[in-house]
Amino acid sequence: MPGGAPDEYIADPGLAEVGDRRIRYSERSMPLLTALARRFTAERPFAGMNVAACLHVTRETAVLVRVLRAGGARVALAASNPLSTQDDIAAALAAADGVAVFARAGVDRRAYYEHIALALGDGGPDLVIDDGGDLVNTLHTERADVLPRVRGGVEGTTTGVLRARRMAAEGALAFPVIAASDTPVKRLVDNTHGTGQSVIDGLLRASGILLAGKTVVISGFGTCGVGIADCARGLGARVLITEVDPVRALDAVLRGFRVLTLADAAPLGEVFITATGSAEVVTAEHMAVMRDGAVLANAGHFDVEIDVRALQTLAVAVYPDVRPHADAFELRDGRRLLLLAEGRVVNLVAAEGHPPEVMDLAFGIEALALAWLAGNSEKLSADVHPVPQDIDAEAARLVLAALGAEIDSLTPAQRAYLASWHSGS
Amino acid sequence: MPGGAPDEYIADPGLAEVGDRRIRYSERSMPLLTALARRFTAERPFAGMNVAACLHVTRETAVLVRVLRAGGARVALAASNPLSTQDDIAAALAAADGVAVFARAGVDRRAYYEHIALALGDGGPDLVIDDGGDLVNTLHTERADVLPRVRGGVEGTTTGVLRARRMAAEGALAFPVIAASDTPVKRLVDNTHGTGQSVIDGLLRASGILLAGKTVVISGFGTCGVGIADCARGLGARVLITEVDPVRALDAVLRGFRVLTLADAAPLGEVFITATGSAEVVTAEHMAVMRDGAVLANAGHFDVEIDVRALQTLAVAVYPDVRPHADAFELRDGRRLLLLAEGRVVNLVAAEGHPPEVMDLAFGIEALALAWLAGNSEKLSADVHPVPQDIDAEAARLVLAALGAEIDSLTPAQRAYLASWHSGS
Amino acid sequence: MPGGAPDEYIADPGLAEVGDRRIRYSERSMPLLTALARRFTAERPFAGMNVAACLHVTRETAVLVRVLRAGGARVALAASNPLSTQDDIAAALAAADGVAVFARAGVDRRAYYEHIALALGDGGPDLVIDDGGDLVNTLHTERADVLPRVRGGVEGTTTGVLRARRMAAEGALAFPVIAASDTPVKRLVDNTHGTGQSVIDGLLRASGILLAGKTVVISGFGTCGVGIADCARGLGARVLITEVDPVRALDAVLRGFRVLTLADAAPLGEVFITATGSAEVVTAEHMAVMRDGAVLANAGHFDVEIDVRALQTLAVAVYPDVRPHADAFELRDGRRLLLLAEGRVVNLVAAEGHPPEVMDLAFGIEALALAWLAGNSEKLSADVHPVPQDIDAEAARLVLAALGAEIDSLTPAQRAYLASWHSGS
Amino acid sequence: MPGGAPDEYIADPGLAEVGDRRIRYSERSMPLLTALARRFTAERPFAGMNVAACLHVTRETAVLVRVLRAGGARVALAASNPLSTQDDIAAALAAADGVAVFARAGVDRRAYYEHIALALGDGGPDLVIDDGGDLVNTLHTERADVLPRVRGGVEGTTTGVLRARRMAAEGALAFPVIAASDTPVKRLVDNTHGTGQSVIDGLLRASGILLAGKTVVISGFGTCGVGIADCARGLGARVLITEVDPVRALDAVLRGFRVLTLADAAPLGEVFITATGSAEVVTAEHMAVMRDGAVLANAGHFDVEIDVRALQTLAVAVYPDVRPHADAFELRDGRRLLLLAEGRVVNLVAAEGHPPEVMDLAFGIEALALAWLAGNSEKLSADVHPVPQDIDAEAARLVLAALGAEIDSLTPAQRAYLASWHSGS
Repeated sequence: MPGGAPDEYIADPGLAEVGDRRIRYSERSMPLLTALARRFTAERPFAGMNVAACLHVTRETAVLVRVLRAGGARVALAASNPLSTQDDIAAALAAADGVAVFARAGVDRRAYYEHIALALGDGGPDLVIDDGGDLVNTLHTERADVLPRVRGGVEGTTTGVLRARRMAAEGALAFPVIAASDTPVKRLVDNTHGTGQSVIDGLLRASGILLAGKTVVISGFGTCGVGIADCARGLGARVLITEVDPVRALDAVLRGFRVLTLADAAPLGEVFITATGSAEVVTAEHMAVMRDGAVLANAGHFDVEIDVRALQTLAVAVYPDVRPHADAFELRDGRRLLLLAEGRVVNLVAAEGHPPEVMDLAFGIEALALAWLAGNSEKLSADVHPVPQDIDAEAARLVLAALGAEIDSLTPAQRAYLASWHSGS
Repeated sequence: MPGGAPDEYIADPGLAEVGDRRIRYSERSMPLLTALARRFTAERPFAGMNVAACLHVTRETAVLVRVLRAGGARVALAASNPLSTQDDIAAALAAADGVAVFARAGVDRRAYYEHIALALGDGGPDLVIDDGGDLVNTLHTERADVLPRVRGGVEGTTTGVLRARRMAAEGALAFPVIAASDTPVKRLVDNTHGTGQSVIDGLLRASGILLAGKTVVISGFGTCGVGIADCARGLGARVLITEVDPVRALDAVLRGFRVLTLADAAPLGEVFITATGSAEVVTAEHMAVMRDGAVLANAGHFDVEIDVRALQTLAVAVYPDVRPHADAFELRDGRRLLLLAEGRVVNLVAAEGHPPEVMDLAFGIEALALAWLAGNSEKLSADVHPVPQDIDAEAARLVLAALGAEIDSLTPAQRAYLASWHSGS
Repeated sequence: MPGGAPDEYIADPGLAEVGDRRIRYSERSMPLLTALARRFTAERPFAGMNVAACLHVTRETAVLVRVLRAGGARVALAASNPLSTQDDIAAALAAADGVAVFARAGVDRRAYYEHIALALGDGGPDLVIDDGGDLVNTLHTERADVLPRVRGGVEGTTTGVLRARRMAAEGALAFPVIAASDTPVKRLVDNTHGTGQSVIDGLLRASGILLAGKTVVISGFGTCGVGIADCARGLGARVLITEVDPVRALDAVLRGFRVLTLADAAPLGEVFITATGSAEVVTAEHMAVMRDGAVLANAGHFDVEIDVRALQTLAVAVYPDVRPHADAFELRDGRRLLLLAEGRVVNLVAAEGHPPEVMDLAFGIEALALAWLAGNSEKLSADVHPVPQDIDAEAARLVLAALGAEIDSLTPAQRAYLASWHSGS
Repeated sequence: MPGGAPDEYIADPGLAEVGDRRIRYSERSMPLLTALARRFTAERPFAGMNVAACLHVTRETAVLVRVLRAGGARVALAASNPLSTQDDIAAALAAADGVAVFARAGVDRRAYYEHIALALGDGGPDLVIDDGGDLVNTLHTERADVLPRVRGGVEGTTTGVLRARRMAAEGALAFPVIAASDTPVKRLVDNTHGTGQSVIDGLLRASGILLAGKTVVISGFGTCGVGIADCARGLGARVLITEVDPVRALDAVLRGFRVLTLADAAPLGEVFITATGSAEVVTAEHMAVMRDGAVLANAGHFDVEIDVRALQTLAVAVYPDVRPHADAFELRDGRRLLLLAEGRVVNLVAAEGHPPEVMDLAFGIEALALAWLAGNSEKLSADVHPVPQDIDAEAARLVLAALGAEIDSLTPAQRAYLASWHSGS
């Protein structure tokens, strides 16, 4: 895997300069990765190692790749989805960074897998970063020959983690995988604050309503629901919560939200937002009693929380796109319900998904986990492991530093006091 | 002014059906006007009267016009700005509502004034609604012949009110004008909540940042600034306030905001929002010490609050449109500042301005004021008058009813108690 | 009125040292008066003048008196209520400050008025500060001989202002009186924040309940109700608002509170707080449907907002003082309602009334108004005048400075810009 | 352990009626226990069992004991602290409830342990509830003869849990113990909301300050610190956070709080509250730079968070009790610092500790855990076990029901959907 791939695997080397400029602009909204680039330049955690990555080839990914390079890695990059590949970014990485890039926008399935196989190189990688599990899978099937070299990998998606877990359960996983899809810090930044803001952003863009004074019903008070509820209340809405979990429901009550069943909330709400992770939450029975003009939006990952088919059945007329990403469904009695983003996840469809701060944190945790793996893989079994708590805390520490927020450290006396207390002596 | 104008004054009568559908959709987001339509149908406050209106010919205006018609008025409508005229709306009003419409998108200045003059009809109007003062001006200059018939008018903009005040000061105003540009209720809904939400909306769309954890500096804690500050805090930002008025500043402090000078705030902020109504608030001196990546947005009516020329002078490079409505200015020392909407009012440029709830209230107050004027004009001098407090309160009452919020009434005993107390007996 | 009164008019000169220590401690929680002492020492606004004051003789009043002395005044002080006189404070002022003090705790009505007359001195005062109107009344009745000397006065209570207004209306008032009972700044600090916190404080002390998760019904969303509502919500309560004024009600709705009638709220609330300034707000009809254990508290000045007599009539048993300042009323059906502070103003009875910051501001405004009067009385008619806006703003400015919050000043260019705009040229 | 103890072990049987009335009043603020009494009356989980309890003999405990009785238990009760015993409560339980009570206020150490031993009865208990570990210890030492009968116990304090853990680690624990000192629900109600409100309550009572506009520094953003911070902000304070844990610090930043080191915060704060669980947090170095008048309060369990000795050393004069529970320390340069509650836990010393809602929940969890243990003890090892998640959730469910907040249940289809997703098939 020396010195880059032939230009044939990228779309147009001539786009390198444009791509480079865009990458450098993105660096400025990714302070955590920028800090890691500085640290890794000094510490060289990947010196002499091959890293194979299968990721969306975007500006943010390019910043991550440069961090790995700064840490001494030789990097090979394949696209984790041909549709999201940005060709100028691919060109810039190939040209200026000596990365072996195998990514062209729009290639077919065959080329997609071929690219992944190529990214594994002749001798195979020491470390891998995957986004969905296709690279790890390819390693275990097509390229089992290089498996012995692989020290470990980091996986960034829930799907990829589930696939790795199943492999581990069957005894088929050949190296340790760090599940970076979910950590306490990521949950805080991504689910609560990232989703909270972006769902409200999507709601405002698609519906155009004034939130102040509106009654907003939020189904689900998990880490996402909490964030959405706080943002809606923060803009002046009266927020009602529905839940199935009594502990979460009690949490909502104690924060001053009214908690009730969705059946009771249905005739009260002017806006309904689902964030349960469950299915068929808002059903025909609820739609039947909603107020004229009620707005329905889904913040869950899958488009199963609002029963869109029931809505279509109930409707005597549909007025599509009364606003961008808003369809009006007229019911028999003349009421209209406004469905946003066709019931799909409203922050991705009607707004822009997560702010860059969220990608910065997610990739920063992956980079830290990979660096830790570089030095500690031999201590880990060939299984799926959570991100070590220290690594997660380190990411938080770097974000705080980037924001200019300083924290205290325990003094030796305090450490001794706490140790004695927790040991109960 | 009988039975509508010839079709030659609108662009295309064939657009009437499309326009009608759009108007009827808008009615659903305008509950106050909808309630007034019902009331006026019963009460007929304008029975037998001519009303001449000069307004932006939009869906919302059409709803207002239908309210006037429901009240028994013969209505003639000219456009207050040829650029904002929606031809399908003009056609729908002309066709279905028997309104004399003089409005075609994009006509020239001569036609613009001709339309206004035509809207005054042969015999002249009994009442007028104006939006900027051109109709009132035309009445007093070109059509002084019909002035005796005019009982009074309502003006909805600050500019129009200033013009009418100047006429009154010079003894030139021939009838009473109600200044509907500013009432306590409108200030609450429009300035504080409407502007508060839409400025944050514009900020998010143009900058794409995560507000949670950000330090946001808001200059000006008037009715707009209060709303922006609450919304920013509601999304998790740490909000700092700068002010020149000690009473407003104390208000901010007591609500838990940090108050400091802009010179002190400049190196701390990650986002700066001006809402002062003043000029040259954010200057070169502040830009010189801002953090790399700081975002600058203006929420004031005029684009004079951020010294954009100074920023251009300081910059060694400008990267326009790094996001829609966001230009990056690179300074000598490598810092970049992000200017939103070129320093123009960010909620109108980068978002969609006021939510429909705000237009509903503004037009509702105008309709109520016009109906009151219909019955009380003879009691008023030929001067500019504020909206009577009862009319403003009535608008609030109707909005509450539309939201389903019921309020109490004073009992006779309570009235007596309060009267005795205030009289100090 | 030279050099103090004979010791016979105070209870015990030996208490001076104790009193002095207490006064000096209070100075530290009165930063506005402390700042004024410094300023008046330099400016001497009362040089050579007699000031007669009729005030509660407390530590806070003593700090005010020292401020007047610092400004060059000869001060005579009578008690505005013999029951509130603190004898050690009286002694300290008499001894160390050369103030003529006429105040002994517990004297009878005759001595009370005699003291006031004595405080007016032989030649009469140049300026007066009154607290309820008894000193001003005595001046106009018993001591009309010295009226010509009096330049003006400041009155700090609503009652005193009403009395002065009635005198002015009858043409009987001999000098200008500044009504310092109510200014925008005082309303902000006192009504909204002072009352807001202290009412919640009284509620917690008397009832002992956990507010988080409780449904709290607040009747009245005026300047006091707003503060109470924000504090209750700030501690995790779900707050419902009842109102008779549609504008205030709309304000509440737009801030995210549910607004409903008290009849509808009665079966929902767990806590009821009245802050209306009206009478018979919570009546038998509401009590009949309240939840078992509901808590009733009044934040209004008079004990007429909760119909206590109705409650007594409804009750089959009363358990007094189940907690300090909490009586339980058992109804026929077994429900119990908890009445706090016998329906009297709960922050004064069950907590400690206003925090010292409020007294500091109130007295600071009175001192500033008196100093302004010293130099401007000849411009004022013999009527009741509001505190000039500049004086009120100056008080805000000094409070901000004491808190360390700095504000900006308009530049000459900004002044010019604003002037041109407001004049509409 | 039949039918109660002789009267000699309680102070005065004649107090029974008074005690009974007080217990019945307390029942009304303990809805969770009241609900459990109803349930246990139907289900009789303790039918035929002996329960030995060692608890503070207070009204709240009496309500718990009646719940156990309702469940069919024969109960023997010893005091967990002779100083907290309320003799009227002891009498009421002995008289009306047929409980064997061994508790007199103020008995000596020998009688204290004798009472515990007596509460174990001749044949020994089937189940125990302990509060600190003395009963469990006595069982294993003095009364090892009855150990075989004991199925298990519940311990409500951190200290008692630590003692049981140490016994288990040494192999000395003879039966399973449920650690009820800490559960997710208890943490929510007790630490966050109970402590949050009561610390602010103690601060207001002891200091008398107005929180609006004040700068409050809170050290520690754990479950307690979060609650205190929200309450302080909810009353209008500007809250600054210091932390040693980066994840908690990031959480604070994202909620809009400023995070900084205590060294940096020391000159800014007007109020300092420690809630770290650590030692020597506020030290001489911080006191040296605090503002004149700064208030120091501790919310941690032990009085080691504020270095009181350092403060005493720095002070040139101490003014004790300038308000109840507030001592002023004058430093060499004239500044004064106000120490509340001598640095001991401010909500217990200066306010009333936890609201009854917190005791209701804590005892409710203990009662549920004991009932669960009655039926499941044989499945548990002789070790310390957490409260089962279902039991904790059941407590939340009952609290919600008492508050009138209804929640949804998963439909079978939703259960199937969630199961399939989590299994990743």
